[in-house]
Amino acid sequence: MTVLGDDQQYHAAVIELVGVLAIGELMAFQRTAADAALAPDLADQAALARMADAEYRHFLALAERIEQLGGDPFVVMAPFQASLAEFHAHTAPSDWLEGLVKAYVGDGIATDFYVEIAAYVDPQTRALVEQVCLDMGYAEFVVDRVRAAIIADPKIGGRLALWGRRLVGEALSQAQRVAAEHDGLSSLLVGGVERPGADLAEIGRMLARLTESHTKRMTALGLAA
Amino acid sequence: MTVLGDDQQYHAAVIELVGVLAIGELMAFQRTAADAALAPDLADQAALARMADAEYRHFLALAERIEQLGGDPFVVMAPFQASLAEFHAHTAPSDWLEGLVKAYVGDGIATDFYVEIAAYVDPQTRALVEQVCLDMGYAEFVVDRVRAAIIADPKIGGRLALWGRRLVGEALSQAQRVAAEHDGLSSLLVGGVERPGADLAEIGRMLARLTESHTKRMTALGLAA
Repeated sequence: MTVLGDDQQYHAAVIELVGVLAIGELMAFQRTAADAALAPDLADQAALARMADAEYRHFLALAERIEQLGGDPFVVMAPFQASLAEFHAHTAPSDWLEGLVKAYVGDGIATDFYVEIAAYVDPQTRALVEQVCLDMGYAEFVVDRVRAAIIADPKIGGRLALWGRRLVGEALSQAQRVAAEHDGLSSLLVGGVERPGADLAEIGRMLARLTESHTKRMTALGLAA
Repeated sequence: MTVLGDDQQYHAAVIELVGVLAIGELMAFQRTAADAALAPDLADQAALARMADAEYRHFLALAERIEQLGGDPFVVMAPFQASLAEFHAHTAPSDWLEGLVKAYVGDGIATDFYVEIAAYVDPQTRALVEQVCLDMGYAEFVVDRVRAAIIADPKIGGRLALWGRRLVGEALSQAQRVAAEHDGLSSLLVGGVERPGADLAEIGRMLARLTESHTKRMTALGLAA
C-alpha cells in the first residue's frame, strides 16, 4: 500500500476522489442509457448509447485504479451514492433537450472540477482523471441538436437557460454536501504538512476558471448563463 | 449488392433479420442499463452495466453487418421499433427480480429463436447471429440471485413463475405481429424456389426445441414453467 507514499490520509483522499468519479460515471451511464429512450429517432438513440458506453468504460478504468491503490471499488463508491442519486432525482430531464443540456452542462462542470482537483494527486491518477474527463465526446452532438431546436423555436432557449441554472444550483448544493461529509476530498485541495495545497487566492482563481468554462458551454449552446 | 447472390427477396429478408436483432439489442441495452437502478447494491449495478455494455457491442456488430449487406441500419431497424417498444412497455419489471427474470427468460427465448432462423441465412450472418446470441453472459449471475431470493422467501417463486409465463405470452404476441407485418422474415423460414426452407415437421421440431429450452431456463431459476 505504498503506491502513493506513507501519508495515509492523503492516500485515502486520492482513493475517495477516484471513487466519487467512478460512481459518478456508473450513474451517468445508467442515466444516459435511459435518456436514450427520449431521443426523437433511432440514430440519436444510438448516439446516446455510444456516450453511455464511453461512461461505462470510464467507470471500469476508475474502478481498476481504485484496486491498484488497494481499495475495494464498491466500498469506496458507496458513501457517495446518496448524494448522486439525489442530484439525479432533482434533475430528471422532462424531455430530450433537457437531457442533452444536462449531459453537456452538468457533466461539464463536474469534469472541470475533477480535473482541477487532479492537479493535487499523483501523476498516474491525474493522467487517468484527465483522460476520463476529456473524453466526453458528445459536445459537438449536443451543441448541434440544441442550437437547431432553438432556431426552430426560440422560446425553447429561455426554458433551457433556466434549466441550465437549475443544474448548476443542484450540482453546487450536492458538491457542498459531499465536501462536508468527506474531509479527505477537501484536504486534497488545501494540502497537508508535507504536501502543498491551494491557498485562498488559488481557490478563487479555480472558481473563476470553472465559472468561465460553464459560461462558454452555455454560450456554445446559444443559452444565457 | 451481390454479397448474398441475386435473390433480392432473400437478400432483403436477411437484412430484416439482422435489423430486428439489432434494434432488439439497442433497446435491451437501454432497458438493462435503466434496470440497473433497481439493483440492491453497487456490485449488482455494475454487473447489470456490464450486461448492458455487451448488448451495446452486439448492436454495433449487427449494425455493421447491415451496412456490409448494403442497408442503412436505422432504416432497417425502424419498422420494428413499435413492436419492441410495446413489448417493453407491457413487461416493465416492477422490481429487481422481475428485471433479472425478464433478462434471462425473455432474452433466452428471443435468442433461441434467432439462432433457429439463422440456420437459413448465409454463413457469415449466421456466425454473427450465433456469436451475439450465445454471448449473453449473465445466466450464472441471474440464476444465482433468483435462487437465493426464493430460498430467502419461497413465496417469491410463485410470483416470478407467473411473471415468466406473462413474458412468454407477450413475446409470442409481438413475434406474431412482427411475422405478420414482415413477410420477408417468415420467407426465410419457409424458403423459396431455389432455396430450401423448413417443412411443417421441421417447424414443429423447432417449436419443441424452443419450448424445451425455455422450460430448462425456468427450472434453472427454480420456477415452474
